Amino acid sequence: MGKVFKERTSVDEALRLFLEHISTLRKVEEVTLESCKGRVLAEPVVSERNVPHYRRAAMDGYAVRASDTLGASPANPVMLQLSDQIEEGSTIWVHTGAAVPEGADAVVMVEDTATAGNLVEVRAQVYPNRNIGQVGEDIKKGDRVFEEGHLLRPCDAAVLASIGFNRVKVFKKPLVAVIPTGDELVSCKDNRDVPPPGKVLETNGLMSALYVEKWGGVPRCTEIVPDNPDSIKKAVETNLDADMILLLGGTSVGKRDHAPEVVSTLGELLVHGIGVSPGKPTALGIVNNVPVVCLPGYPVAGLIALYLFVHPGIRKLAAIPELPELILKRRLVAKISSKIGYVGFVRVVFEGDKVRPLVGAGAGILSSVAKADGYVLVPEHIEGYEEGEEVDVFLIE
Amino acid sequence: MGKVFKERTSVDEALRLFLEHISTLRKVEEVTLESCKGRVLAEPVVSERNVPHYRRAAMDGYAVRASDTLGASPANPVMLQLSDQIEEGSTIWVHTGAAVPEGADAVVMVEDTATAGNLVEVRAQVYPNRNIGQVGEDIKKGDRVFEEGHLLRPCDAAVLASIGFNRVKVFKKPLVAVIPTGDELVSCKDNRDVPPPGKVLETNGLMSALYVEKWGGVPRCTEIVPDNPDSIKKAVETNLDADMILLLGGTSVGKRDHAPEVVSTLGELLVHGIGVSPGKPTALGIVNNVPVVCLPGYPVAGLIALYLFVHPGIRKLAAIPELPELILKRRLVAKISSKIGYVGFVRVVFEGDKVRPLVGAGAGILSSVAKADGYVLVPEHIEGYEEGEEVDVFLIE
Repeated sequence: MGKVFKERTSVDEALRLFLEHISTLRKVEEVTLESCKGRVLAEPVVSERNVPHYRRAAMDGYAVRASDTLGASPANPVMLQLSDQIEEGSTIWVHTGAAVPEGADAVVMVEDTATAGNLVEVRAQVYPNRNIGQVGEDIKKGDRVFEEGHLLRPCDAAVLASIGFNRVKVFKKPLVAVIPTGDELVSCKDNRDVPPPGKVLETNGLMSALYVEKWGGVPRCTEIVPDNPDSIKKAVETNLDADMILLLGGTSVGKRDHAPEVVSTLGELLVHGIGVSPGKPTALGIVNNVPVVCLPGYPVAGLIALYLFVHPGIRKLAAIPELPELILKRRLVAKISSKIGYVGFVRVVFEGDKVRPLVGAGAGILSSVAKADGYVLVPEHIEGYEEGEEVDVFLIE
Repeated sequence: MGKVFKERTSVDEALRLFLEHISTLRKVEEVTLESCKGRVLAEPVVSERNVPHYRRAAMDGYAVRASDTLGASPANPVMLQLSDQIEEGSTIWVHTGAAVPEGADAVVMVEDTATAGNLVEVRAQVYPNRNIGQVGEDIKKGDRVFEEGHLLRPCDAAVLASIGFNRVKVFKKPLVAVIPTGDELVSCKDNRDVPPPGKVLETNGLMSALYVEKWGGVPRCTEIVPDNPDSIKKAVETNLDADMILLLGGTSVGKRDHAPEVVSTLGELLVHGIGVSPGKPTALGIVNNVPVVCLPGYPVAGLIALYLFVHPGIRKLAAIPELPELILKRRLVAKISSKIGYVGFVRVVFEGDKVRPLVGAGAGILSSVAKADGYVLVPEHIEGYEEGEEVDVFLIE
C-alpha cells in the first residue's frame, strides 16, 4: 500500500529513451493524389517527363524569329506578315500556354504590337527565347522532384499530377491501440445519464483517439478493461499487432495501478515517474518492439503525456518530418509558480497581446484545458515566471 | 487585343473588399464527437450536469472526519477504526476517484498512514475538504462551457463527452465549386500519357481542391470548361448552389480570358488586377451573394490567390476563428529583389538556421513551390531585402 515512485526521470531523458526504442515503421501503401495530403513519401520521385513538354508561349502575342525584330521600336516598328508558318518576315499569333511554332524563337507580347489586316506592326525588339518557356523549364525528365520522407502538401500533389502520377507510395499510418482501464469507468457511448456515484464516463479514450488521428496515426479504441493485472495483460497482448499501445489509467502507485507492472512483466518498462506536473505517473515501455505509453487517468495529466510522448512517438513511427517550431512569444499578466524538479504545464488564456495563467486548476480539471488557449512549459530548474516576463506559448491543438 | 488591366488594387484593399462582401454561412449540422475535431461550434454549450457528479477522492487513502485527525503527526499518530460507515473515530479506505462516504469530510493520503489489523494509524492532520474533489469542481451544472464559434479540439471533445454529449451542433463546411477553364487543358484523371504539344494536364483543380479541404471547405470539382464566355457563364450559373466558386484560368487580359468578364456580367466584379507578383491577374467578385475568385492559370500565381483570398474567404464563410499568427523569423543568406507596387511572393528553402530565396522561378514553375519550405511576402512599398536581413517566413502548407 505504501508504494512510491522509485525514481523520477526528466522529461528530456524519458523522451530520449522512449524514441531510442522506437523504429520508424516504413510500411508502404499507395494512395491517390486526392488523398495524399499530409502523407509522407515512401520513395523518391523522379520525373519521367519534361514539364512543359513543348516550347510554350509565356505571353499572348506573336511568335517570331527574333532576328526579324532587330531594332524595332515604337518610332521604328517592323512589319511582319501573319502566316501559318514561320519564315523570314512572317509571324503567327500565339496565346499564353500555346505551343510556339517551329522556326520561331521568340514571342513579342501583344502590348508591343498593332495589327492592320494581315500585317503585324512590331514595336519592340526581342531576343531569342524571349517569352518562351523551354521544354523541361519547370521539371526535366530525370529530375529528382521529391526525396523520400517528404511531407506532401496540396501544391506537391499538383506537381505529381503534372508529371503523370495519379497514385503515390507513402508510409502507412501507424495503428495505435487505445485501451482505457479502470473499474470506475463506464463507456460514454450509450450512456446519456449521469452514472452512479463512484462511476465516471470514460472520456480519455475519445480524447486520445482524436489526437492520434490529428497527429497522423490510426486509433483503434478497445472496450474498457477492468483494474486487474490479468485483464490488462490480456488487453496488451491482444493489441500487439498495433504499432503503439496507449494504456489509459492505472499508472500511479496505488493498489489499483497495474499498468506499469504489466508492461514490465510483458516487456521492458523504460520509465515510470516523470518530472512533469501534472503527468508524473506517466510510464513508458516496450513490449515486443511495440512502444507502450501508460497515461495517467487524470485527464490533464493524460493530455500532457499525449503531447510530450505520444506525439513524438507517432512522428517517429510514421517518419513525419519535424517542421521548425512556431513559437508564440507573449508577456504574462500574472506570475506563474512551478515546482522545482518538474516541468510545469501551465494553461494560459489570451488577454489582449498578453497571456493570463489559469490558476487553481488541478490535474483532474479538464475544463481548465477547454478554457485555455495555450500552455507554457516551465523548465524543471526554475520556480516560475514573474508577471510581465515574456514566455513561449504553445497553442492547445 | 490591346486590353490591359484598368487598375491595380492593393492586396489589403482587395481582401478587405472581398471579405466585406462575404457573409458567414451559419448553416448548422450535427456531428458525432468522434468527428467534431476542427469544427466550429454553432451554439454555446451549457452543462446540464456537475462534473464530478459526486464527492470524489483525489488520492488513494482513508476517508475520515477531519476533526478526528486533530493534532495527528508521525510522533503523535491518531488511531482510527476501519469500518463500513463513517462516525467518530472510524475510517473507510478509498481509492483515487472513488466516492467519499457520507459523513467523511476529508481523505488522509495513504502515505501518511499505516495499518495494523482493523486499525489505521493516521500520522498527519487533515483539514475539512482535504483531498476531496467537490461536486461540480470541474464543471458546474449551468456553466457555460463553450461559446458559439469555438473551434473544437480533441480535449474539448472529451469535455463534451464528460457532460453527456455524444453529438454536437457545428457550422456546416462551405461547399466550394472548383471550375477549371481552358481549351489547352486535359484532365489528369485518365491521362497517363504526355498530352500533345499545346495541351497540358489540368492540375490546378486538384491543388485547389486539396487546399479547400485543408482549410475547412468541401471542394466540388467540375469538368474542364472551354475558353468561351457562354460555357464559363453556364458553369458559374450551375454552381451557384455552392458557397464559393473558384474559376481557374482565363483571368488575364488576353483574347481567351473571359472569367472576370463573366463575373461582371452575372454579378459584381469587385477587383481585377491585384498588386501581388506573381498573381496580378487575380479577380474577385460576387454573383448572387456567392463569392467568386478567378485564379490565374499559372500555378504559382494560382497558389498565391489561394493563400491570399480563398483561405480568408473560407474562414469567414465557415466562422473559423483566427488564431494568433505564428511567424518564423529567419535571416536571408542572399538578397531578395521585389517590384515596387506589388507584394512579392518569394519562395525560400531552409539552410541551417537561415533561409535562401529561390531565384529565377516564374509564375509557371510550380516545382519551385515543391522545392520551397516557405515563402516571404515583400511589402509593396519596398524593393526587397538585403542579405542577412531578418524576414518573416510563412511555411508552405
